[in-house]
Amino acid sequence: MSGAEQAAGTGQAGAAGQAGQAGQAGPAGQVVAAGQVVADYWAAAEARDWAAFGALLAEDVVYEAPQTRERVRGREAYLRFNAEGFPGDWHVAIQRIVSQDRAAVSMIEYSEGDSSQFGLCFFDLDEDGRIVRITDFWPDPYEPPAGRAQLAGRY
Amino acid sequence: MSGAEQAAGTGQAGAAGQAGQAGQAGPAGQVVAAGQVVADYWAAAEARDWAAFGALLAEDVVYEAPQTRERVRGREAYLRFNAEGFPGDWHVAIQRIVSQDRAAVSMIEYSEGDSSQFGLCFFDLDEDGRIVRITDFWPDPYEPPAGRAQLAGRY
Repeated sequence: MSGAEQAAGTGQAGAAGQAGQAGQAGPAGQVVAAGQVVADYWAAAEARDWAAFGALLAEDVVYEAPQTRERVRGREAYLRFNAEGFPGDWHVAIQRIVSQDRAAVSMIEYSEGDSSQFGLCFFDLDEDGRIVRITDFWPDPYEPPAGRAQLAGRY
Repeated sequence: MSGAEQAAGTGQAGAAGQAGQAGQAGPAGQVVAAGQVVADYWAAAEARDWAAFGALLAEDVVYEAPQTRERVRGREAYLRFNAEGFPGDWHVAIQRIVSQDRAAVSMIEYSEGDSSQFGLCFFDLDEDGRIVRITDFWPDPYEPPAGRAQLAGRY
């Protein structure tokens, strides 16, 4: 998945071996940093690989979207929310990941056809390195107040 | 500033001494982690202490708000943007800070009177530990699509 590879290549995703990082125990027992778990999460979503996606989640994962006040509790419910709640030929590309200890934040570009949008997602991992809390934001474009038009350019 | 103190107290702000962290050289020459620089940034904003605020910024800082496509270049312009562009009795309280190396992300609650809103801000520091890039998001509430009403609760 190009977004994840790109982020990993710039060193923004993951931080394996960094002191203080905690993450999921991999096949060989090594610790996987929170940033890498999040890169894997988006790669699995992009691939619609719900088995891989589910393996990254804690049984008691809680998803919250503060803008809509939606909340989903538990791995099975959250898998259904993703697999059934977002039909369509969408794609996600990781713009950046910042991780610290058992927390990580991703900025992604979500695109479908000609439209695209930023998605911002805060993740917390449990002691086993599985995602236990997700707080999700989807900021929409808006017009700035006229009162500060002289203070900022536009791009 | 209570928000910054709260975040520092939970260990989510800053990560002084963590390997791989880079930040601003403080008075005694110690390295200040990116998360602490961001906590100081919000404390200075809350206090309207624009001298302290400006001291955290690189001369060539660039601010971007992808939702409005506003861009402000340079310390002096960015100080004016903040000091003049946001009148009113607003307050900011840090909800969390995640930092890695010379990057940090903050989630704040911005409030004015009875209204409040989340603000999400990505920061990059330069080699001197000063803030050189700010990417700012203000997600607004919205109604979720009806198609996924059966897949999520509301809070």
